[in-house]
Amino acid sequence: MAVFEVEARDGRARRGRLLTPHGAVETPAFMPVGTAGAVKGVTPRDLVAAGAGMVLANTYHLHLRPGDELIARRGGLHRFMGWTGPILTDSGGYQVFSLAARRVIGEEGVRFRSHLDGSEHELTPESATEIQARLGSDVAMAFDECTPWPASVEEARLSMERTLRWARRSRERHDLLSGSPLGAGAAMTTPGQLQFGIVQGGMYPALREQSARETIALGFHAYAIGGLSVGEPTHVMHDVAGAAAVLLPSDRPRYLMGVGMPDDLVESVARGIDLFDCVLPTRNARNGQLFTGRGPLSIKAAACAEDDRPVDPDCACYTCSHFSRAYLRHLHVAKEITGAVLNTVHNLHFYLDTMRRIRDAIQSGAFERFRQAFHHAYRRRQRPGTPEALTHQ
Amino acid sequence: MAVFEVEARDGRARRGRLLTPHGAVETPAFMPVGTAGAVKGVTPRDLVAAGAGMVLANTYHLHLRPGDELIARRGGLHRFMGWTGPILTDSGGYQVFSLAARRVIGEEGVRFRSHLDGSEHELTPESATEIQARLGSDVAMAFDECTPWPASVEEARLSMERTLRWARRSRERHDLLSGSPLGAGAAMTTPGQLQFGIVQGGMYPALREQSARETIALGFHAYAIGGLSVGEPTHVMHDVAGAAAVLLPSDRPRYLMGVGMPDDLVESVARGIDLFDCVLPTRNARNGQLFTGRGPLSIKAAACAEDDRPVDPDCACYTCSHFSRAYLRHLHVAKEITGAVLNTVHNLHFYLDTMRRIRDAIQSGAFERFRQAFHHAYRRRQRPGTPEALTHQ
Repeated sequence: MAVFEVEARDGRARRGRLLTPHGAVETPAFMPVGTAGAVKGVTPRDLVAAGAGMVLANTYHLHLRPGDELIARRGGLHRFMGWTGPILTDSGGYQVFSLAARRVIGEEGVRFRSHLDGSEHELTPESATEIQARLGSDVAMAFDECTPWPASVEEARLSMERTLRWARRSRERHDLLSGSPLGAGAAMTTPGQLQFGIVQGGMYPALREQSARETIALGFHAYAIGGLSVGEPTHVMHDVAGAAAVLLPSDRPRYLMGVGMPDDLVESVARGIDLFDCVLPTRNARNGQLFTGRGPLSIKAAACAEDDRPVDPDCACYTCSHFSRAYLRHLHVAKEITGAVLNTVHNLHFYLDTMRRIRDAIQSGAFERFRQAFHHAYRRRQRPGTPEALTHQ
Repeated sequence: MAVFEVEARDGRARRGRLLTPHGAVETPAFMPVGTAGAVKGVTPRDLVAAGAGMVLANTYHLHLRPGDELIARRGGLHRFMGWTGPILTDSGGYQVFSLAARRVIGEEGVRFRSHLDGSEHELTPESATEIQARLGSDVAMAFDECTPWPASVEEARLSMERTLRWARRSRERHDLLSGSPLGAGAAMTTPGQLQFGIVQGGMYPALREQSARETIALGFHAYAIGGLSVGEPTHVMHDVAGAAAVLLPSDRPRYLMGVGMPDDLVESVARGIDLFDCVLPTRNARNGQLFTGRGPLSIKAAACAEDDRPVDPDCACYTCSHFSRAYLRHLHVAKEITGAVLNTVHNLHFYLDTMRRIRDAIQSGAFERFRQAFHHAYRRRQRPGTPEALTHQ
């Protein structure tokens, strides 16, 4: 069965459809992050209204609480969280390395203590694959080690090679679970679950090349580029992602994990990336950073206090259609939960609308023009209330 | 102009319509509380979906932050908070007595320090009336002193008499502000703003009687019963409210401030009350207490962990239509903001649906039957997961 249909190409950018057990996802796509089985601050109907096709959930968090077995008994993650569309689960690797306490990393996997209650746990390629099978996501990720940045070439090589050995074990366990519906396959909550491999190798082209070649040889449904957006300069990220993308099969979607800012999405699509996830739109919404076509706006800024304009005059979201910057600033300053909700609705709408515009531009062969216009308007720092911003009204 | 139309009576219960500058409110009505210009956790479209007719906002909070003058410059509270229906503002009295620091109460009014930043402020009958005029609510409340409980008859008398003097001054200032559209009236953001007086007198019938008689003599648009739900036993609250209600004009709505639990609403309507406000549905939602036709359910309870039923199988709200107790418990335990949102959507729907059922019952002359059926099913403490609860499925 085909996993991916490419519908249009424009330079290296592609418009396509990722086919999953819970439906097709129009790509390039951005996945809102639902860490613990909920995209923080919004409900599934808000996600649908914003145009979300697929969401990401975190294996590490759900394994610790409420537990993947409890979720499997509820009929799986889709039913549990009331989301009928496709779900991708990460492998838990990134969170084990960034959140867990007292990590002991070995060839077998990672032993750690829960950041919630100190209880002891172990994640291995096999257990991470089994947890994701129980959760019943549409796409499971192979268990990988996210190489830190900076890392020496030797550190990056050792880490990448371990990820390759873990990828093989993840792949084998997934095959086993997918195999017989009466045997081990009974643990597969969503039949037909896909599994993506992850290319590592730090910022070293030769390691990325080896990682891509050997990961592809394992025969995953598609491939992700990991270990980026970990602190490296933006141009390094784009260079490494772009170089990795051309190493990946053109008939499979390419997923750039943990990226990124809106302009990063545009640049990555230009380099052949099809799938993204990032906490920025949701987390920054709660912190008062709102994304607009002119760049991010800090709603906390004093200049917003009496600003009757919407966050983004070009945005059609519920928040921009009904509320002023002055009101959103008040809610943020007063720590009102409704402010976090409205900010999240806007940021997700902006991200998902940007992806819609990207797809439309590719379809009509106008992606390069869209890309230039986007960058012309978008500034990484927007000073609210300046004459420049005011002329935008 | 008529303020209130009684459409049906059933015993002492009435069904009616409160006429305000921003439209009619079907009564008996419950007002969700939007303390700082937002009903915590929900948006105006959620309020409309839940069936809210009128919301309450707090003068004390909005005066301190973002400031009533800032809100007036934004065009008033309706425009600021994106709520096109009627709004009632309290007088600030209750919050000054419960929240503010270093209160100095005198005949003139109350000097206090903000609980937010320690800044000095003063609320008087005149300033409380002016603040509400600037906010542009549909109903302003006279500035009163909420008599604490317990209070001796002498304490309650002195407090009630001060409230009467403050009521006269509130009334006079409102007249002045409503007077000339070119003079002081320019400060009235919503032309035709109504003003309600407040009956005090503690738990003493003679004081309540005097308070009602003299407050009515001042000629407010309608009357509220204050100083209840302050710690007294439930039966005392119902007795005092019921006795006060019959003292109030039958051609005006009667507003029981700060009440209450769902069964309190039913009992109060039976005693002739038309209007309520309370933070219980919203605050308790965030604390994990969910109201149902069988009584409150603690979603935190371990018994909910694997309970696939909705919070209330008889509820048609978004939360009950899409999510299980198990999921809501998980979100509550994980402190997910989406949990607070979904719980609030449910509790408001339950409260507002109860009011709808009350109105329908009065209309069809079946209020007494409704009241008995309600109490038969509703228990102040519901033990989740007990066989009793399970039979309800």
